[in-house]
Amino acid sequence: MIWDIFNYIGIAAFAISGAMMAMEETYDLFGVYVLGFVTTFGGGVIRNILIGLPASMLWEQKIAIYTALTAITITIITPMLWLRMWKRLLVLFDAIGLSAFSIQGALFAVDQRLPIHAIMVASVLTGIGGGLIRDVLAGRKPLLLKEDVYAVWSMLSGFIIGLHKEITDVELFFVFILVVTMRMISVHYQLKLPLKIVWHN
Amino acid sequence: MIWDIFNYIGIAAFAISGAMMAMEETYDLFGVYVLGFVTTFGGGVIRNILIGLPASMLWEQKIAIYTALTAITITIITPMLWLRMWKRLLVLFDAIGLSAFSIQGALFAVDQRLPIHAIMVASVLTGIGGGLIRDVLAGRKPLLLKEDVYAVWSMLSGFIIGLHKEITDVELFFVFILVVTMRMISVHYQLKLPLKIVWHN
Amino acid sequence: MIWDIFNYIGIAAFAISGAMMAMEETYDLFGVYVLGFVTTFGGGVIRNILIGLPASMLWEQKIAIYTALTAITITIITPMLWLRMWKRLLVLFDAIGLSAFSIQGALFAVDQRLPIHAIMVASVLTGIGGGLIRDVLAGRKPLLLKEDVYAVWSMLSGFIIGLHKEITDVELFFVFILVVTMRMISVHYQLKLPLKIVWHN
Repeated sequence: MIWDIFNYIGIAAFAISGAMMAMEETYDLFGVYVLGFVTTFGGGVIRNILIGLPASMLWEQKIAIYTALTAITITIITPMLWLRMWKRLLVLFDAIGLSAFSIQGALFAVDQRLPIHAIMVASVLTGIGGGLIRDVLAGRKPLLLKEDVYAVWSMLSGFIIGLHKEITDVELFFVFILVVTMRMISVHYQLKLPLKIVWHN
Repeated sequence: MIWDIFNYIGIAAFAISGAMMAMEETYDLFGVYVLGFVTTFGGGVIRNILIGLPASMLWEQKIAIYTALTAITITIITPMLWLRMWKRLLVLFDAIGLSAFSIQGALFAVDQRLPIHAIMVASVLTGIGGGLIRDVLAGRKPLLLKEDVYAVWSMLSGFIIGLHKEITDVELFFVFILVVTMRMISVHYQLKLPLKIVWHN
Repeated sequence: MIWDIFNYIGIAAFAISGAMMAMEETYDLFGVYVLGFVTTFGGGVIRNILIGLPASMLWEQKIAIYTALTAITITIITPMLWLRMWKRLLVLFDAIGLSAFSIQGALFAVDQRLPIHAIMVASVLTGIGGGLIRDVLAGRKPLLLKEDVYAVWSMLSGFIIGLHKEITDVELFFVFILVVTMRMISVHYQLKLPLKIVWHN
């Protein structure tokens, strides 16, 4: 139940982030919906392909589809000024989505009896795959791989779940809180992963 | 029979559009063929993956592959000036392709007993997916999502077929004519979908 | 045995090329690993999808994954100056990878009893698919389709294997040497495929 709530918060946050980027790029209404949907569901589709689940599972997620549809529509009719004011809230929602999606991805990979490296990749793909496709379709360099510490927390959840495949719901909840917290700390302190180790040359 | 003709006209139009964009971007001969093929077949491959059909169905479409090959080769050996003169004709061919591909995509989704939202997505993916991949591989922002009313007519065909799954061939033909007509009207009057609803802020 | 060596040399070369491009684009450490992996394994995943093999075969290639991981790590800790000095060696490694990957792709397609055009596409996808995804994720126009004669040699191996499906290991070895040699000649003489045939217009 509480999982579902986090999951739908994440879906809404991802849909809004796709829709907002499409509006910044002056895509038309149709483009706004496309980018919103792709950001929300793209990561799960790629993950399913890579871990051997049918991509057509997508169509069973009826409530998720309507949640995304509603979030995109609200984004379109909300004044830009308000959207900017909500930016901090959106960062929290996005962190919740990153965490919920990553954990869900890892659990799917565990179900498929895949090794730990596959579980970690499944986490990351579910957590950031949609954002990557969004950036590519918007013609931008993927900031997720560049700007701040984002994907690493997603991979961390896959790593923990990969080590403890018999994880309980309570433990999962702690992993969830951990990823959200680490992500919010990264944003607040503007943490960055190092670039290449620099030498004099 | 008449379906096949529309379908092959669409294949040729999509292949030509990919090849022309590759030439504008000064891709080499190999790149021209790659972009032509990707534009023609990319949408169908993505649709198959998403509606649970094997992507390897691609290889059975022998005549389609040779049609695309021929269209690309003709594009390469035709003087640029002529290609420019044919531009209006190409717009019509492209509209025929959009319509034929979209209807074909919707019918595949109906065969897979998918719900109406999946049928609409299958239409759009088949109709515009190849063009999206073309734009990404050419390093351009996807104009399909930006410039003029294009994908919406594709989705309209999916919507109609999704509502009337027992559609007859004659009705399908009317849907086909409807999409082609709406697309040509959009081009002629340079219709645009609205961007974000603008507020003072 | 010798195949395996060529294959791992190719894996290392592709991983290094992805990691180096990520560093040029100032991606963070995580982005460097992502781009390295995508360059190495992306082509094989797309090929598997298109020829009807499960994409999840990826996870069985344990040694390949560790090889890529090691190559990326070495790239990160090696001074840039040295990497530049090794550039000529990397071109050779990359040619070995192109050849080994292309042949492997063709053999998979032969196993799937696909027709010759599918075998040629499988060769090219395995040989250059990872590089294409790398360029797209790095926000660059794909040079593979533009700059010099690269993908054609990959396709040549698919063509030869498609014609002689009962090919022996010795013959395969000659195909391998042929592709590596042709690629190195292309680099040395800076061969280019023609662009569009130009007319006065």
